[in-house]
Amino acid sequence: MALIPLPEDLIPFLKEYLPATQFKNDCSKPFLTLTYAQSLDSRISKGKGQRTVISHLETKTMTHYLRFHHDGILIGCGTALADDPGLNCKWSPIGDTVSWRCSPRPIIIDPHCKWGYSGSKMQELKSQNSGKSPIIVVLKRPANLDANLDVTYLEAPLNVEGRFDWLHLLKLLKSEYGITSIMAEGGAIVINELLSQPTVVDSLIVTIGAKYLGQQGVEVSPPAGEIELDNITWWKGTVDAVMAARLRKIQC
Amino acid sequence: MALIPLPEDLIPFLKEYLPATQFKNDCSKPFLTLTYAQSLDSRISKGKGQRTVISHLETKTMTHYLRFHHDGILIGCGTALADDPGLNCKWSPIGDTVSWRCSPRPIIIDPHCKWGYSGSKMQELKSQNSGKSPIIVVLKRPANLDANLDVTYLEAPLNVEGRFDWLHLLKLLKSEYGITSIMAEGGAIVINELLSQPTVVDSLIVTIGAKYLGQQGVEVSPPAGEIELDNITWWKGTVDAVMAARLRKIQC
Repeated sequence: MALIPLPEDLIPFLKEYLPATQFKNDCSKPFLTLTYAQSLDSRISKGKGQRTVISHLETKTMTHYLRFHHDGILIGCGTALADDPGLNCKWSPIGDTVSWRCSPRPIIIDPHCKWGYSGSKMQELKSQNSGKSPIIVVLKRPANLDANLDVTYLEAPLNVEGRFDWLHLLKLLKSEYGITSIMAEGGAIVINELLSQPTVVDSLIVTIGAKYLGQQGVEVSPPAGEIELDNITWWKGTVDAVMAARLRKIQC
Repeated sequence: MALIPLPEDLIPFLKEYLPATQFKNDCSKPFLTLTYAQSLDSRISKGKGQRTVISHLETKTMTHYLRFHHDGILIGCGTALADDPGLNCKWSPIGDTVSWRCSPRPIIIDPHCKWGYSGSKMQELKSQNSGKSPIIVVLKRPANLDANLDVTYLEAPLNVEGRFDWLHLLKLLKSEYGITSIMAEGGAIVINELLSQPTVVDSLIVTIGAKYLGQQGVEVSPPAGEIELDNITWWKGTVDAVMAARLRKIQC
């Protein structure tokens, strides 16, 4: 599906929340943008595994504008399995001419190797020179790898809670693959975890679609309770609103 | 607490969503505005019975501006018990001079007479000529009423689902008490019920505070699933956004 033009006022609105070149050079971890689209009732889909249209085409274009500005794009394996997303970038400053080089590198959080690259939309796009091959973050690299599959496995240890340590993981992605900026797009597990990581998340960009998806939907809400934000600003679109902010740093 | 001035651009923003004089004369039910403030994760408080600051003072002023424009203000008994709200109006077009006549009439949905007016903030405000006395909607008027208590009971039957029939109830409030416009402010049970009543709700005005309250919070999300909106428009404040819309009428 082709994109519609990016609303011009989104560019100054997002400027302060994008990874800066300066940042790339003096930090051991990549710049991390957490971004997703939710309904008014904080659902990112109407049910597990159900792709749901939440936002207007103009905020879809915004997503591709954000992809253009990041080296990596991170999702959980649940989203990869449910949506089979392409994760490439269809936007470029020079209009229709979009090189695969504009696309971020997909990063799939898949500790137990549930998702398969073979036959995926990502593989299709890679074969068409329209996207990059993914890095799959696993606890242990699978045996009997198909050497022809253009895919990279990154092994990382789980912490005592059975989760990856985000800061450690991000630093690995920078040191091993030179990824200096990542946008995390979902799903709910990834988002809910990252919302409680103010030292990891540098920007938060949330699109709110003006509809309700109902109690059966897949919800974003931090399990640990209240989270305050700083540097809050809003953009209003035709039917959506977008909030950009930073997670408030916890005072020691 | 004194109000801060109403942001001027809220007046044209809200205009189309306020009860119109014209409407008052040709409809058997009052105009109903459903309005509430929520966090990004669709919580209206951080826990049952916990008053929670969600919105900026400028959107608090908006609430009083809305109260000025409605004859009645409706809440559930859970909210009345938890918050002991005053429900009066502190805003007027001529600034500090606010008459009790500007305040809407409180309407408490309390089928089983759980809430008591005696000793409440509403009674205090009424005694100070700063608010009106409530109409309490009950299944059956309590026995041994204190004749000195300036309170009105409205009996209404429950439907097969054990709930009041909203349309019937609103018509009663118009025919018995001449109430031509009502704003419903909460809590979650009232909001979730009204969201599925597109023939009852005429305007929807939702303030979104830029914070998360977490999974333990009291949630707004319609139990019956997806709800689409029409005539959507957004206002952006210092840190909040406000969405005004209408519930989409169900096509027969």
